[in-house]
Amino acid sequence: MVRLIALYSQPDDPAAFDSHYRDVHAPIVRPYPNLRGVRLTKADGLGGRPAPFYLLAEMSFDSRADLDEALASDPGRESGRDLRSFAQAGVLLFVADDDAALDA
Amino acid sequence: MVRLIALYSQPDDPAAFDSHYRDVHAPIVRPYPNLRGVRLTKADGLGGRPAPFYLLAEMSFDSRADLDEALASDPGRESGRDLRSFAQAGVLLFVADDDAALDA
Repeated sequence: MVRLIALYSQPDDPAAFDSHYRDVHAPIVRPYPNLRGVRLTKADGLGGRPAPFYLLAEMSFDSRADLDEALASDPGRESGRDLRSFAQAGVLLFVADDDAALDA
Repeated sequence: MVRLIALYSQPDDPAAFDSHYRDVHAPIVRPYPNLRGVRLTKADGLGGRPAPFYLLAEMSFDSRADLDEALASDPGRESGRDLRSFAQAGVLLFVADDDAALDA
């Protein structure tokens, strides 16, 4: 599997962020071609410090080619535009190729 | 499951980072009590841009209590000291409670 990982910074208004994500962003992402699953996890801090991110979103695909095709699709382009409308606090995006992962 | 997630910034000398991680850091982490698994993935970029991180390390535990116990153990404290010796470029740590995750 290959994961597209989005790390969202703490929003000013978490309730507004959550409802936008649920009601607007998730419905844009769900029809991505080739999408195998989406996992959303609120980040927790360590040692009494707040987490450096608010939300971890992991979108799974069978391959990097499938992921790139999804992002180039109409829903992929729309989700990029939507990101700019609700992730003003910042979002970091990267890809984790789990097929190339090592067990330590 | 609960994941302790470490996101390492791009090191100045990736080869030195990799060998320290493999030969020094991983042997400290492996004896963590309660550790269920470690997955190491090099981050890939998107759209021709470099990834915002170099390495994603995910350490799995059955519960947040198990994770906290591991970090408070001797190997846990030693790994914290070791981090400061090789992750000078920066590392972000947080916890993802996958039992509380949502499918979007």
